[in-house]
Amino acid sequence: MRIDIITAVPDSLYSIINTSILKRAQDKKLVEIVVHNLRDYSSNKHKQIDDKPFGGAAGMLLKPEPFFECIEKMKLERDYRKIIFTTPRGKLFNQSDAKELSLCENLIFIAGHYKGVDERVIDRFVTDEYSIGNFVLSGGELPVLSFIDAAVRLVPGVLNDSESALDDSLMDGEIIEAPNYTRPAEFKGMKVPQVLLSGHLKKIRKWQEEQSKILTKKWKNINTLE
Amino acid sequence: MRIDIITAVPDSLYSIINTSILKRAQDKKLVEIVVHNLRDYSSNKHKQIDDKPFGGAAGMLLKPEPFFECIEKMKLERDYRKIIFTTPRGKLFNQSDAKELSLCENLIFIAGHYKGVDERVIDRFVTDEYSIGNFVLSGGELPVLSFIDAAVRLVPGVLNDSESALDDSLMDGEIIEAPNYTRPAEFKGMKVPQVLLSGHLKKIRKWQEEQSKILTKKWKNINTLE
Repeated sequence: MRIDIITAVPDSLYSIINTSILKRAQDKKLVEIVVHNLRDYSSNKHKQIDDKPFGGAAGMLLKPEPFFECIEKMKLERDYRKIIFTTPRGKLFNQSDAKELSLCENLIFIAGHYKGVDERVIDRFVTDEYSIGNFVLSGGELPVLSFIDAAVRLVPGVLNDSESALDDSLMDGEIIEAPNYTRPAEFKGMKVPQVLLSGHLKKIRKWQEEQSKILTKKWKNINTLE
Repeated sequence: MRIDIITAVPDSLYSIINTSILKRAQDKKLVEIVVHNLRDYSSNKHKQIDDKPFGGAAGMLLKPEPFFECIEKMKLERDYRKIIFTTPRGKLFNQSDAKELSLCENLIFIAGHYKGVDERVIDRFVTDEYSIGNFVLSGGELPVLSFIDAAVRLVPGVLNDSESALDDSLMDGEIIEAPNYTRPAEFKGMKVPQVLLSGHLKKIRKWQEEQSKILTKKWKNINTLE
């Protein structure tokens, strides 16, 4: 899997890309992540990549030319199944989207910054617009990194068996998992639920299923009353 | 505003914290961000911070002791209005939550990693659980950074006038803003909508409002049919 990220602030990406699961996926040669500095694709003598929006709004927009330069070059080099733009107006990203992305061979992510990106970039190239949620960020970098992390950890071989994502919350439909506890069994007067220490696997699973149902119901209540 | 982040993978955070808006907010002394390496609070001789969950599930959990050590120390030093844990079972974070956080003087964010965190940490300390969306990430670091970015940019003085967030999508209820264009007016045969070049401010605002309505309707359709 190859992932190209186009951004105006490449320096913001490296510490996420070079730690934890994303680092391991690259070390194992399962994923290649290439960061493109938008400024490198500017033919402007001052390497200017932004300009004022037409129509008199405040803020600066990312200009179309460097994106066209970068994306047209990449499209000559390989086929991209999806070119993704992160924007509040997109589809709210969910686990099915992560699964779908994890099956793609080549992906381009465009991270907006400042006020946004000239609409012609989106019209010409973008296949999917995803939103991370109903809140405003300084740029598309954090959504891009989040979507990449969610997708890459589903690529076969990236997680090892003991990390198996199978019983994580939300993996299997919209199910919240039961609370988890580890040693010590008692800490500052707070005890681990007795059943988890019982060694009685059937009772443990039953307790976990009950807890999971309670938490899932609570979660649905919190998030549909808005 | 002071923000403390507790994490098992501190290295993953720095490039976001030290670029763009978060850097500027710190340079202006409007926000102080302190990253705590969970490992520094382990009294275990091997600096072990994780252990197997009781009940036989796969994966590793973050142990309670280092969190208690770290949070109890911080609570002696100052009052924290909110101690936030990021988890799929939390409330879906939105712009109102960002506003609320931006008004707090001191905040602690706990980033889970691996399979999660011993539930007693949450029971004892956490005031708010927030989710970034219905998908699974390798850890809480990206949600934590996203929530911090969303909150910090609302702290008075962080954004300058020309960045004024007022007309951003989703700032004023759930409104998606009109498409944006910048120079050149024509590029590779793609023209900026004529009205934006007209200089006729009233017509421009009318066009933007119409476009905004269309995009907001489209956005609501995409995100409620799931």
